Amino acid sequence: MAQSSILENLYYDKPLKYKPDLIKFESTYAPKIEKYRKELNDSIPHQVKLRAGTIGAGLEIPDDFDNVAFKQAHEVASKSGLLSKEELAIVGLEAVEIVSEIAVGELTATQVISAFIKQAAIAQQITNCAMQFFPEEALKRAKELDDYYAKHGKTVGPMHGLPVSLKEHYGYKGKTTNAGFVSMIDNVTEEDSLVTSIFRNAGAVFYIRTTQPQSLMHLDSSNNIIGRCRNPYNTALSPGGSTSGEGALISLLGSPLGLGSDIGGSIRAPAAFCNIWGFKPTNKRVSLQGAYASYRDMANDFVLCSVGPLANSADDLELFMKTFLGAEPWLKDNYLTRAPWNSSVSLKPKDLKIGIVFDDGVVAPSPPIMRALEMAKSKLEQAGVAKCIEFVPFETLKGLEICYAAYNVDGNLNHRTRFEESGEPLRPLSEHHMRFGEGDKDFTGLELLQLIYKRDSYRQQFAEAMNEADVDFILTPAYFAPAAVPDKIKYWGYTALYNILDLPGVSFPTGVVTDQAIDTVDKHFRPRNEVEAYEYSLYDADVFDGSPVGLTLHGRRFYDEETLGAAKLVQKIISTQGN
Amino acid sequence: MAQSSILENLYYDKPLKYKPDLIKFESTYAPKIEKYRKELNDSIPHQVKLRAGTIGAGLEIPDDFDNVAFKQAHEVASKSGLLSKEELAIVGLEAVEIVSEIAVGELTATQVISAFIKQAAIAQQITNCAMQFFPEEALKRAKELDDYYAKHGKTVGPMHGLPVSLKEHYGYKGKTTNAGFVSMIDNVTEEDSLVTSIFRNAGAVFYIRTTQPQSLMHLDSSNNIIGRCRNPYNTALSPGGSTSGEGALISLLGSPLGLGSDIGGSIRAPAAFCNIWGFKPTNKRVSLQGAYASYRDMANDFVLCSVGPLANSADDLELFMKTFLGAEPWLKDNYLTRAPWNSSVSLKPKDLKIGIVFDDGVVAPSPPIMRALEMAKSKLEQAGVAKCIEFVPFETLKGLEICYAAYNVDGNLNHRTRFEESGEPLRPLSEHHMRFGEGDKDFTGLELLQLIYKRDSYRQQFAEAMNEADVDFILTPAYFAPAAVPDKIKYWGYTALYNILDLPGVSFPTGVVTDQAIDTVDKHFRPRNEVEAYEYSLYDADVFDGSPVGLTLHGRRFYDEETLGAAKLVQKIISTQGN
Repeated sequence: MAQSSILENLYYDKPLKYKPDLIKFESTYAPKIEKYRKELNDSIPHQVKLRAGTIGAGLEIPDDFDNVAFKQAHEVASKSGLLSKEELAIVGLEAVEIVSEIAVGELTATQVISAFIKQAAIAQQITNCAMQFFPEEALKRAKELDDYYAKHGKTVGPMHGLPVSLKEHYGYKGKTTNAGFVSMIDNVTEEDSLVTSIFRNAGAVFYIRTTQPQSLMHLDSSNNIIGRCRNPYNTALSPGGSTSGEGALISLLGSPLGLGSDIGGSIRAPAAFCNIWGFKPTNKRVSLQGAYASYRDMANDFVLCSVGPLANSADDLELFMKTFLGAEPWLKDNYLTRAPWNSSVSLKPKDLKIGIVFDDGVVAPSPPIMRALEMAKSKLEQAGVAKCIEFVPFETLKGLEICYAAYNVDGNLNHRTRFEESGEPLRPLSEHHMRFGEGDKDFTGLELLQLIYKRDSYRQQFAEAMNEADVDFILTPAYFAPAAVPDKIKYWGYTALYNILDLPGVSFPTGVVTDQAIDTVDKHFRPRNEVEAYEYSLYDADVFDGSPVGLTLHGRRFYDEETLGAAKLVQKIISTQGN
Repeated sequence: MAQSSILENLYYDKPLKYKPDLIKFESTYAPKIEKYRKELNDSIPHQVKLRAGTIGAGLEIPDDFDNVAFKQAHEVASKSGLLSKEELAIVGLEAVEIVSEIAVGELTATQVISAFIKQAAIAQQITNCAMQFFPEEALKRAKELDDYYAKHGKTVGPMHGLPVSLKEHYGYKGKTTNAGFVSMIDNVTEEDSLVTSIFRNAGAVFYIRTTQPQSLMHLDSSNNIIGRCRNPYNTALSPGGSTSGEGALISLLGSPLGLGSDIGGSIRAPAAFCNIWGFKPTNKRVSLQGAYASYRDMANDFVLCSVGPLANSADDLELFMKTFLGAEPWLKDNYLTRAPWNSSVSLKPKDLKIGIVFDDGVVAPSPPIMRALEMAKSKLEQAGVAKCIEFVPFETLKGLEICYAAYNVDGNLNHRTRFEESGEPLRPLSEHHMRFGEGDKDFTGLELLQLIYKRDSYRQQFAEAMNEADVDFILTPAYFAPAAVPDKIKYWGYTALYNILDLPGVSFPTGVVTDQAIDTVDKHFRPRNEVEAYEYSLYDADVFDGSPVGLTLHGRRFYDEETLGAAKLVQKIISTQGN
């Protein structure tokens, strides 16, 4: 078996400095966790509580979604009988439709949020997607907006009355913000994050803050506060992460638009795994001001977290960007690039030069992903795109080596400190990401200067490879499989590569669904390396049967508008029936 | 005397690790330097050699410009009799006028370059501004352009026939590039820098590469290869640096447009000291690809070098930006922000909210600078600007502490290595900059992560201070005095602060000229700290008599177009006669 040593190290147990303190954890934090969970559970309105057994439309629902592969969440959500026909119609609307119907008086903010509260409550009970749920506050806010509209005959802004769900790690005025760390479970944040504040001023209605994994650094969702979030297409699988709760919630129409963040795939992976849309813009386009993670009093700008939306359509992703950038946020957050949203981008098939990644050289896509890529190539060619070729990413392993080193430039000091404060045990995938790069090893200053050079050189080489191949867009899997096995997913290569490159990316549904009859791994398949062997051990066509396939389109750095526009067009082309 | 400990350290002799190797230097490099100087000297056409004594118009010129305060360079340049009336008219044109006259066939590229070759040769003889001068190549290139124009009836691009001077450290195909280091004296660069390449394609004619200080890190100009460059207004003073040669050359109309770079004031200071225009854009707007400095195989992105133009008008600075950005350079240099030049910015006095820095709290401006600032305030108020208030930069010393640490994050390893390769002796100001921050001390990785945090927090605090004061532009001195004393200028505070902040800045002439009769330091003046005491020891109204005063307008990050537009308007207002 050939070696890919950089990554294979990750599959062995390098020792870590962090030692949990279970006595402190149990004595001091377990009661806080219990209280947190109770508040969350109590926040679900009584009238939308699901109960095990048979509910409306003859659907059987299990006692415990964690221990079965429940695949009917969407059916429950649409046929539960808990929402009226009108309410079901409302949750079926895109965000852009909601704001336009409210703006012309066809719907009220109260009608809209009432429907989403119910749907989100159902989603929460099946997937455990929420960390905080506050319907009463939301209804009060919606009424204020309706009163404003009634009095002034106009909206307060471009999100007037729009329910917007928020990944928990964005600070929220007056509520706790834990960012997936038990030690921060009672960290009350006095201010809204900048994104939250701008959306609030634009008329958004907040009602739910969604879950994320411990430390925010899994492509999965599991933390010591509320446990794990489940994939709505199969509760035995993961929605992906770290924007886990948004993926599950939006997929079940429990929110029309959500706020996420992505430093290694955390928007693109859950969007792909949950069959929705997700957009990771170029770094510094959307603000992290007021968001929480492990760092304090030091900063890692070697690889940056990109903030962006998840939704059920490309237009909704654009609504997020236009609303945020319309507020000239760079005057408030000096870290941002000044770049208003350019709404004039309009692409036709002949404008698209696409490279398709059929294999990144490390972990080959599983059969259903390969089917989706081949289908995409065929339909794109038929649609007359300017170019559609196979594209092999420039030295994937080199890029990942730089990226993984960049994640842990502090030798894990900041994660370790956050963990030590509560003594919480590590979730399996926290151990994994803490082994990235040099693990706990401290870098010297000169090593960091070398890392900057390597990163910038790699970015330049990758850009030149795109120029050489004459492609502007790269269509890739988000992961080798259609979804993640909880606590197991380790390979970030199909997404993290584009974080170290800082290329924008849009995940979207393809219409392809895993079929156990045809999506079995060829019996002659032999993994090329330990990494591929490990990941393939997680793929089973029976388990994944019914899992939809999402793909991701990446574009050039700063070409966010073009990338989103191209993704919209590509998705339209490849989801068209035929062939 | 109050303390400003961060900076005062710089005025004592902290030991440095670097030890010159004079035996190696003399044996191996002195002959190369001699050859380099001879080639430079031989490149001056015989017919424009100045000779000591009386030349045209009865002007006396000295034997040795270094040892006298010669103040008639502009007069020599305009009355030497070496240029025809037509040629003098050509060198008096702005770059935008030259390209437009060539484009309509009023002038040829050959006529234009012929005039500038003569004028540059005069400038070189008075100020020692060049490192390489290659008139023959330039004439050949001009002829090719003229032939193209004759054949096709159109220009090759927006710089067709425009002489453009280049700071030496930008790589130039087939020539040596030393970046102010003796060890690189025979470093032949195979490729043009990206800026050079884009301007070449746009039709620029290159004929001169201009001088810079040892290591590029002085606000002065002195290196061990060709010695020092002189200020055209007073050859006993310095033109500033590090874009020294451009400052002197353009001031004497030896070039209509020059390429510079600025990591601590290196465009703004020489522009101000030489009474011309200079523009430091926001970082990553213009490319450093193919430029040389001390770093190899590692990179310092803690404080970045900004590339920009020097010229005799705001419109010429804009021509540079439009031409460069019009080539979509971000597709070639991945490091650049994608930001086309926005030509639609048009400002009126009522659009300007200006804070004026009458004192940065560390070194008060000298009398002629203060006169210029007061005159500016008065005229701006009369012109009806929206706001014109005194502005005190937010915690100047804190910003400079961060900036100076950022310069030397490698503990001077890269400078030291470049010096060690030749064993060259340090110029006095190289010792100074190597003491910046922590000097030779190695940083740990965690210290660098803290530095990133401090820098970004400081930037945010500064931006909030601008928001609080409600100012968009900051009018500042470029230095406390109108020019620099060679080998002595140590205080970078009025420029470097805006490098660590990454704010764009434009230097421009004010029309104020130092007058020994009125610009004496008040006898009651008592320096507040060692830094101020040191700098004031350099200022003498008699020495500076006749030195023109430039000022600098800084704008918000990424507001390059607005900053340049505002500077153009401000300069027009304050250079208007009256009051």
